Amino acid sequence: MVLERLQQMASHLTGQVAQHHPFDPLTTEEIAAAVAIIRREYSDLFFNAVTLWEPRKAEMTRWLASPATVPRPHRVADVVAIGRGSKVYDGLVDLDDGTIVRWELTEGVQPLITMEDLQIVESVVRKDAKVIEQCGLIGIPPSDMHKVYCDPWTIGYDERFGSGVRLQQALMYYRPHVDDSQYTYPLDFCPIFNADTQEIVHIDVPKVRRQLNTASPINYHADAIEKQGGFRKDLKPINITQPEGVSFTLDGRTLKWQNWSVHVGFNYREGMVLSNITFNDKGNVRPVFWRMSLAEMVVPYGNPERPHQRKHAFDLGEYGGGYMTNSLALGCDCKGAIHYMDAAFVNRAGEPQVIKNAICIHEEDAGILFKHTDFRDESCTVTRARKLVVSHVFTAANYEYCVYWIFHQDGTIQLEIKLTGILNTYAMNPGESAAPWGTEVYPGVNAHNHQHLFCLRVDPSVDGHDNTVFQVDAVQGAGEVGSEENPYGNAFYAKKTKLGTPGAAMSDYDGSTSRTWEMANTSKLNPYSKKPVSYKLVSREVPSLLPKEGSLVWKRAGFARHAVHVTKYDDDQIHPAGRHVPQTSGEPSQGIPAWIAANPDENLDNTDVVLWHTFGLTHFPSPEDYPVMPAEPMTVLLRPRNFFTQNPALDVPPSYSSAPSQIAAGKTGIRGIVDGISRLAFGGGGSTQ
Amino acid sequence: MVLERLQQMASHLTGQVAQHHPFDPLTTEEIAAAVAIIRREYSDLFFNAVTLWEPRKAEMTRWLASPATVPRPHRVADVVAIGRGSKVYDGLVDLDDGTIVRWELTEGVQPLITMEDLQIVESVVRKDAKVIEQCGLIGIPPSDMHKVYCDPWTIGYDERFGSGVRLQQALMYYRPHVDDSQYTYPLDFCPIFNADTQEIVHIDVPKVRRQLNTASPINYHADAIEKQGGFRKDLKPINITQPEGVSFTLDGRTLKWQNWSVHVGFNYREGMVLSNITFNDKGNVRPVFWRMSLAEMVVPYGNPERPHQRKHAFDLGEYGGGYMTNSLALGCDCKGAIHYMDAAFVNRAGEPQVIKNAICIHEEDAGILFKHTDFRDESCTVTRARKLVVSHVFTAANYEYCVYWIFHQDGTIQLEIKLTGILNTYAMNPGESAAPWGTEVYPGVNAHNHQHLFCLRVDPSVDGHDNTVFQVDAVQGAGEVGSEENPYGNAFYAKKTKLGTPGAAMSDYDGSTSRTWEMANTSKLNPYSKKPVSYKLVSREVPSLLPKEGSLVWKRAGFARHAVHVTKYDDDQIHPAGRHVPQTSGEPSQGIPAWIAANPDENLDNTDVVLWHTFGLTHFPSPEDYPVMPAEPMTVLLRPRNFFTQNPALDVPPSYSSAPSQIAAGKTGIRGIVDGISRLAFGGGGSTQ
Ligand SMILES: [Co+2]
Ligand SMILES: [Co+2]
Repeated sequence: MVLERLQQMASHLTGQVAQHHPFDPLTTEEIAAAVAIIRREYSDLFFNAVTLWEPRKAEMTRWLASPATVPRPHRVADVVAIGRGSKVYDGLVDLDDGTIVRWELTEGVQPLITMEDLQIVESVVRKDAKVIEQCGLIGIPPSDMHKVYCDPWTIGYDERFGSGVRLQQALMYYRPHVDDSQYTYPLDFCPIFNADTQEIVHIDVPKVRRQLNTASPINYHADAIEKQGGFRKDLKPINITQPEGVSFTLDGRTLKWQNWSVHVGFNYREGMVLSNITFNDKGNVRPVFWRMSLAEMVVPYGNPERPHQRKHAFDLGEYGGGYMTNSLALGCDCKGAIHYMDAAFVNRAGEPQVIKNAICIHEEDAGILFKHTDFRDESCTVTRARKLVVSHVFTAANYEYCVYWIFHQDGTIQLEIKLTGILNTYAMNPGESAAPWGTEVYPGVNAHNHQHLFCLRVDPSVDGHDNTVFQVDAVQGAGEVGSEENPYGNAFYAKKTKLGTPGAAMSDYDGSTSRTWEMANTSKLNPYSKKPVSYKLVSREVPSLLPKEGSLVWKRAGFARHAVHVTKYDDDQIHPAGRHVPQTSGEPSQGIPAWIAANPDENLDNTDVVLWHTFGLTHFPSPEDYPVMPAEPMTVLLRPRNFFTQNPALDVPPSYSSAPSQIAAGKTGIRGIVDGISRLAFGGGGSTQ
Repeated sequence: MVLERLQQMASHLTGQVAQHHPFDPLTTEEIAAAVAIIRREYSDLFFNAVTLWEPRKAEMTRWLASPATVPRPHRVADVVAIGRGSKVYDGLVDLDDGTIVRWELTEGVQPLITMEDLQIVESVVRKDAKVIEQCGLIGIPPSDMHKVYCDPWTIGYDERFGSGVRLQQALMYYRPHVDDSQYTYPLDFCPIFNADTQEIVHIDVPKVRRQLNTASPINYHADAIEKQGGFRKDLKPINITQPEGVSFTLDGRTLKWQNWSVHVGFNYREGMVLSNITFNDKGNVRPVFWRMSLAEMVVPYGNPERPHQRKHAFDLGEYGGGYMTNSLALGCDCKGAIHYMDAAFVNRAGEPQVIKNAICIHEEDAGILFKHTDFRDESCTVTRARKLVVSHVFTAANYEYCVYWIFHQDGTIQLEIKLTGILNTYAMNPGESAAPWGTEVYPGVNAHNHQHLFCLRVDPSVDGHDNTVFQVDAVQGAGEVGSEENPYGNAFYAKKTKLGTPGAAMSDYDGSTSRTWEMANTSKLNPYSKKPVSYKLVSREVPSLLPKEGSLVWKRAGFARHAVHVTKYDDDQIHPAGRHVPQTSGEPSQGIPAWIAANPDENLDNTDVVLWHTFGLTHFPSPEDYPVMPAEPMTVLLRPRNFFTQNPALDVPPSYSSAPSQIAAGKTGIRGIVDGISRLAFGGGGSTQ
């Protein structure tokens, strides 16, 4: 035990293990090796992505079943590189063999925009004569161009420019002082940047011009608050300590905690990837999910005026949830005993880069896990819950997305996303109304309506890879009130509809029936309930896609047309809006709609299926969201139903437990109990009397 | 400061303050006084309830505005007493004057069942010859009658017996050993108990008999787990300490924390009552809600066979959320620095009784409150959130409801309810199928489908008592794709529908439009957004009432027909299903439907309104829920929208903050930061390198 712990510490401190798990992200050494192999044959490239090409499922499954006899899957790098003239190359490099196994020029696509790509635009914009001219028209003199900033987005799609040239739209802002929030000073025009020539090629200028906002700055950084009266002083510390350490262990990146085992991967695109998730059910290691990730998202804005239709960022496919990941800090982002994992990426020049502390792993107390009191004698058992949180936070220009994968002792997996950061804003003139497409959140600041729609990719392996998805609705029983079969009209049941083909499986949310979706293994019945073992998707924040059918967003973000899509597993189907998302026209739609159209009647019954779930929220801004938004959480649950034969957390040590015979024999009641740590707020030690 | 703290401690330790706040629950002395005053005139009564008759709003508002000049509202006891022959008396006792101001014999109603009422039935059942006979028929010999148990419910409503006589239905169980969970051994028949004569007056026997379950016991108390292999040993402690004490203060029962002020009341029926909730907005104390409580609930079961239609408990109106409240324990139900409040009730004999530690007040760390990083230089501010939790837990026979009122620093109030405890179960024969109305959760144990529907009563006072409720839907803008007004089809906005009359205000949930409801003060516009100041109800667990229109449950639980009802404020309209709920037929429906029918076209625009919100979940049991259910949480949010002019939590001290100029000047980045308490999981102290 001690030795194991020391080995674990050693491996964490050096960042190395003897041999990488096939799901481990590429290391800095592997990234460098992949780039070197490519450079032997190709030059004059810059790198967009060098990431793990995950082993094919069939190969990986064979190896996992018998690692001693089956050859270990090779380490393969998935490479995107860009040459002169915005030429895009997709390649695969076998790192075990040291060979390039695929290298293709891919026409008519644009890979995502990296943080480096973003950083270039601002300096170009500031020097561009036409931008300087536009600034002058709205009240910014040429001498103030160093106060001009931009958030360079991908152009999304603009039919005037198509997808042949790599373009960015520069959302323009101004800072009176370098520390002032630029979102209070949005500019009304939008330059278009050519990433190949590094020039401004066009400027979109509105018909009605809007002068630079004259309102006072509003900021939230510490110096600003100090100047406005300082911080509140009535908040006493809450300390969270784990004197005996954490309850999880790590073997490489395989995390074990409270019967759970999960491999924690990470890539530039999806951020965290959870693979090979199993639950040790009394010694029987049962597969639950083969792979889960947040696979895509889209944030459509609701203002119909040009060029705001271009504001519908695919933050994962167009920028990369991994690339935008924050470096986390002890006691800031998480409290207690924390384990961090770093993330390694390639940069534009082909050098490996590391984001320290990209992933945070920690435990939290989670309140009451279960409790029951017998009203007869007050005999009682109460047990507290623990949860394991695996998280990262990424910054998408103005917005922050905090992603928490949470494992519970009762077999539930929860995905919680918190939205914080700053609203995207646009200029408005004095007297202009922001309604109905936005809200004036501060004088002269128009925050447009928008949706945050996330696509969760779930590859279930509920007691095996062959699963079936059912839509489940709570519905009334047959028979009118007074009928023989339903005399009192109170009959209701769970109506299950098999989603048998991709075409039939496009299903929407229905709040009135509390609709859920079950991923079931119909070959394995629960011995008690005789129902298939399953995991149920419970998701309640499921707005409709508000851009209309046939609209630009509807075409590009096909995954968001329905709450749930189901497809047959395919190793190459990972990205719901396509592999390369920027500047896709949606004609035809990439990703999910294309896959379904290719084979709408494929059998999804008792086979290897993938469930895609789009959820999120519609955000009508208000002044409370400004100048920085209080975090707004959203939750999706994956709950075991008929999977276990009993509550799988019964053996979690209780805080207190008494049985009737003990109460009768004089055992102290629950009020005599303290945990030795908790205290009364106003005086007194451990006694509650 | 020290003096204030000492006074506070003293008042908490003695449980007395000089003069009661008019919203304070009756004390034990006041309960005793009320009973004594009644006993001077009436004898041969037993007491059902002696509780605070809350001051009328108009009188209370006048007093609060000028406590020095306006007479303090009298302390008045609201009394329910029962005489011989199930005669029910409703009375009011003015404790300041020492007089009975109202005393009425109320015909044809039955007040709720108290814990004492419940306790009586079991001993009667065990001795009843017909019950002993029925036990014999299903395999329980007379010598085992001490192993027979019952959960005595109100009868709900049974048309064969009406409401003239006070009745209970005894849900029957068996315990092989006194410590075995009886829910594994449900009996198939149901005796009816007359509470007046204390006799069994009828037994409902099913056509198909079911023998006593022969499965082995399944238990969750500590001794049982020890015998089954013991507790898991890999869970390390998490300690939560508050070395400088709590951040809240109490003046009597007025709780102040992070700009919030709220009076914490408690009664036998609703449990916690939160009154006069205000938010100190930079020195301006702004009213938000006049009164909030969980006012009613109903748990309809979905099995149509007689007599299961009677299983639809109104846990608050038929039993009392206060009466069933648990006595809480340090470190078990809550961790950290805790303040408890006791609850005082009358007993059947007229004596005051106290539940110690009925209410728990404590703070919790709540993760990231807000965060933003500038991608240019990684300047960053991250601030952690705190929440204040005011909670109680009540046991409704088999089920536990944990009720958490949570105050957030950003102006949000959250009601979280966790469901735990044990499933209600019914007997089944070997080979019998529980589907579709239930699930076999353990051999021989049928847990029926059911809903948990809660009715939240919200009396808003958003910047004043005159408010208006709007239904808000996220909808597409007009104009097809390609039209001039909506060229890209991306337009969407918040459609607001004024709920102008009680008749028009019966509204259902619509998940597809992310429907919310705003309680707005249309006389006061946000200076920035020009929209009315408001609080928005965000609730996503809103199933339809599944019992059909015209059914018994539909008639009795009128409040559950719609997600939202709005009524004009009336001092006497507190109980959504009526003041006395047991044995109501629903003909006519009591409470909300009656109030609306009396005046469907009353003006609700810019006047004193009350919003009633029914939410909850539909529960299809599974073996994971047995033998005790992992807690399942549900959340309702009340969020400020256009209420503040900015994020009201900006002055919460950050964990870390740097501005661009500081980064440029060499300020340490966020990764150098630790809070002095958090640690790395595997070795290392505060350094994250
Ligand atoms: Co938003
Ligand atoms: Co339930």
